[in-house]
Amino acid sequence: MKKKIITISRQCGSGGRYIGEQLAKELGISCYDEKLMDMVAKASGFATEFIEDKGEHMTGSLLFNIASSLSYASNVFYGNGMTIQDEVYLIQNRIIKELAEKEPCVIVGRCADYVLRDRKDCLNVFIHANEEDKVDRAIHSYGMPEKDAASILKKTDKARYNHYKYYTDREWGMSDNYDVCLNSSVFGIEGCVKIIKDIVEMS
Amino acid sequence: MKKKIITISRQCGSGGRYIGEQLAKELGISCYDEKLMDMVAKASGFATEFIEDKGEHMTGSLLFNIASSLSYASNVFYGNGMTIQDEVYLIQNRIIKELAEKEPCVIVGRCADYVLRDRKDCLNVFIHANEEDKVDRAIHSYGMPEKDAASILKKTDKARYNHYKYYTDREWGMSDNYDVCLNSSVFGIEGCVKIIKDIVEMS
Repeated sequence: MKKKIITISRQCGSGGRYIGEQLAKELGISCYDEKLMDMVAKASGFATEFIEDKGEHMTGSLLFNIASSLSYASNVFYGNGMTIQDEVYLIQNRIIKELAEKEPCVIVGRCADYVLRDRKDCLNVFIHANEEDKVDRAIHSYGMPEKDAASILKKTDKARYNHYKYYTDREWGMSDNYDVCLNSSVFGIEGCVKIIKDIVEMS
Repeated sequence: MKKKIITISRQCGSGGRYIGEQLAKELGISCYDEKLMDMVAKASGFATEFIEDKGEHMTGSLLFNIASSLSYASNVFYGNGMTIQDEVYLIQNRIIKELAEKEPCVIVGRCADYVLRDRKDCLNVFIHANEEDKVDRAIHSYGMPEKDAASILKKTDKARYNHYKYYTDREWGMSDNYDVCLNSSVFGIEGCVKIIKDIVEMS
């Protein structure tokens, strides 16, 4: 098993997080998703909810970014012209690199594919799904209101795209950036887990 | 085996064509690549080399498109404002649909994923690879001159991107458009064949 670190990037509503959790369970390794956010929150001094939002979503608001660069809540960095988003990104990067160094694991989201791009033992996965399945999952699994689900999903993915583009200069979801991309509408959650597990075991 | 038709889209130099041929061999089904171009050539009255170029590459030349719409070599269509490229695309589409209707098969390139988008028995695959491996394959397998290989590959993929965008309004290589995308630099030709074969057999 040469691929010890599996990064899972995913469209909102595609079930990528569940795939990551299930895969980690089957491989007997840790899955860093919420746990990673807690670690970044602890290291940065921000609330986990703040990290959850700012650590992966690019706000388009110029005002937010100006305000961010003026008001510091961080106990790690000091006034250096960076936005809060930049600080969160840097702390996240450091923690992702430390985790990958420490143990085989699954890391969900957070540009981990890019952060760990120099390692040879990473399998970078992207999970997407058909529109209707994402909306269905958003309503029934995440409890999103039916009338807003499609637009929330679209905005979330747009924010992820912009965040990835800003920090990596790559196109989020473009197949080039990943070793394997799967449509969970076609294979199902279990099917995706099986395909990735087989690939990890054959590597 | 619910996925009877496998479409393989591929970056130039990624080995996607070989993967398609090898996969078809292992599944005991036909692979339509050069054979498809011969069929389109026969049906359209154009030379195979012309089909090979125009059936998948979008020329950026306005002059070519004007000239195409004025001079007709086709024995199938008549002066109707379409370019030669449009005619080739339509003939290709018809043949691809007929092939999919007739028998399980692998179809390489030619927007087949889009042409067959309404079928439920298609597995749409995209193969890409790292730059240095594509250049290496282009030089040693396709006999491209060393000094030009990188630029020829880039131009070919740009033409494929534009052609796909023009006829499908989709982004060529964007993971959304395919069921599975694989990096042949990571898995090798044999590895990609095995992964796709396993997926087809589990479907």
